[in-house]
Amino acid sequence: MDKICVLGAGSWGTALATVLDENGHNVVIWSRRKEQADEINSNHTNSKYLSDIKLGKSLLATNDIKQAVKDSKIIVLGVPSQQVRKICKMISNIITDNQIIVNVAKGIENDTGLRISEICKEEIPNNRYCMLSGPSHAEEVSRKMPTALVAASEDIDVSRTVQDYFMNEYIRVYTNNDLIGVELGGATKNIIAFGAGILDGLEFGDNSKAALMTRGLTEISRFGVALGAELSTFSGLTGIGDLIVTCTSMHSRNRRAGILIGQGYSIEETIKKIDMVVEGITATKAVYNMTKKLDIEMPITECIYRVIMGELDPKVGVTELMTRSKKHENEFIFKL
Amino acid sequence: MDKICVLGAGSWGTALATVLDENGHNVVIWSRRKEQADEINSNHTNSKYLSDIKLGKSLLATNDIKQAVKDSKIIVLGVPSQQVRKICKMISNIITDNQIIVNVAKGIENDTGLRISEICKEEIPNNRYCMLSGPSHAEEVSRKMPTALVAASEDIDVSRTVQDYFMNEYIRVYTNNDLIGVELGGATKNIIAFGAGILDGLEFGDNSKAALMTRGLTEISRFGVALGAELSTFSGLTGIGDLIVTCTSMHSRNRRAGILIGQGYSIEETIKKIDMVVEGITATKAVYNMTKKLDIEMPITECIYRVIMGELDPKVGVTELMTRSKKHENEFIFKL
Repeated sequence: MDKICVLGAGSWGTALATVLDENGHNVVIWSRRKEQADEINSNHTNSKYLSDIKLGKSLLATNDIKQAVKDSKIIVLGVPSQQVRKICKMISNIITDNQIIVNVAKGIENDTGLRISEICKEEIPNNRYCMLSGPSHAEEVSRKMPTALVAASEDIDVSRTVQDYFMNEYIRVYTNNDLIGVELGGATKNIIAFGAGILDGLEFGDNSKAALMTRGLTEISRFGVALGAELSTFSGLTGIGDLIVTCTSMHSRNRRAGILIGQGYSIEETIKKIDMVVEGITATKAVYNMTKKLDIEMPITECIYRVIMGELDPKVGVTELMTRSKKHENEFIFKL
Repeated sequence: MDKICVLGAGSWGTALATVLDENGHNVVIWSRRKEQADEINSNHTNSKYLSDIKLGKSLLATNDIKQAVKDSKIIVLGVPSQQVRKICKMISNIITDNQIIVNVAKGIENDTGLRISEICKEEIPNNRYCMLSGPSHAEEVSRKMPTALVAASEDIDVSRTVQDYFMNEYIRVYTNNDLIGVELGGATKNIIAFGAGILDGLEFGDNSKAALMTRGLTEISRFGVALGAELSTFSGLTGIGDLIVTCTSMHSRNRRAGILIGQGYSIEETIKKIDMVVEGITATKAVYNMTKKLDIEMPITECIYRVIMGELDPKVGVTELMTRSKKHENEFIFKL
């Protein structure tokens, strides 16, 4: 029975806190907002993010980050990717070197293109780090639906520790030491989900979407391998697994944004309608720019980039992709 | 403008015949039933299999198989997998060695466990062979929805020839020379689709299904590699691509059969209700028996096998899978 803190009381952070609580740990959720912490402590609910779910009575919350972090064996970063740096700065003077950081946010930093582990390394250089990722809607985890995740760390002992903390009869955790692959899979899948949404908005069918997801997987794998990831990671839970969930769910903002584009809304109208960060759009720009620097062929990403920039009609884009030069399916793998 | 024949006037054969017809070829569909051939010739419809679709006027049909095969550059086998041997026997004395056989049926022969290419090799040993496969509902192809396919042959020139015949602005064909991988992907995906249906019947969510599909992909890849396939093929259109379409579509008999099992119907009741061959059930038995002989670890297939045999309650099976010993995600790839 170890103390664990979860920083951030959004839906995913709260769902993971309930898992750890049920596994018998001493869990504290940190929320920036005192009212939210009070609601968790007195009502055992988090009505804004996980309505309908009764939290365990032993699950506590605080808005004092120092109190949350103190003596925790692992510190779960449950904040959106663009806030990770800020939270790291907040705890960098509190954290001790033996505490393990477990990040659960997917994405890359907008301004720098850095992976989350790189941000953490800059702000908190001495702590061991793990990313916990995979196909997982928070609502389903909170309702104990069977879910498989990956604990990825360069240090396999850290992966195993995180596996031990989280695993139970409805959460299965696999270890993986390809941290780069797991991080890049989580960041780039939103590009393909945005593209899948565009196809849905254009009212194309299952064939088109399966083709986009499969060929999308091929090109994000190519991108990942060029940046040092293992090819096999992209065929796993944090690659194709997460891509399947994101491309088929209406929970995905990226997919919903794509649907609007496919229906003919402009990119400005779409961003306004979604009214939240559309990570797929940010990721498309960041990855496109990197492909140009690194000379990596990513035709789907390039097509989506041109649609976002207003240079290409989505329907014309599909025809361009369909009529590219004839290829062998595994052309890029032969070059490895 | 070459003569091409399509043997079999089901939905997939007819849809592919319309593609070839639109690409400017001289296409003849062979149907066993004279009335169906007459309907195609006079009404330009195939109301039983592709209702609502108007076929091209240049697309002809016959119930004379000899006339269909004569002088055709390629012979498309558009019959169900269990009928391939019979059709091969029918044409083995008619076919000439320079004619290419393109099979579009997915499956393995029930009694022998043979792949379709092996059946063709036994019956028509001298002809070059290609399998055309991938994520493709016939209805969508007939409505010109963008679709990506793979032409797989041990002879790359044959793959390229087939690619040239079929490709147009809504059909994109990739070549692949891993015929074994493409054939085994098409046959084993039905096991996983049957399992996905069981999860849907049990009312589990997206997380569970994505986990099943991803870990299912891992084990059918392992099976394929043990039988001589390339690992990468399973991450492609005929592997994960086809798996996505089959596991998410209500068109799939295998998935519908699984749903019934998940809802508590017995295997006998399920087979009776579906009233058509459920290839996932046959494939599960065949593959399970092979894993025992070859000593290949396929926990999901084994679980489904025990459910089919009435030895295991599906819900208990899910818990067994979730609580297996702790694993590294890419354990089997390390052993390659």
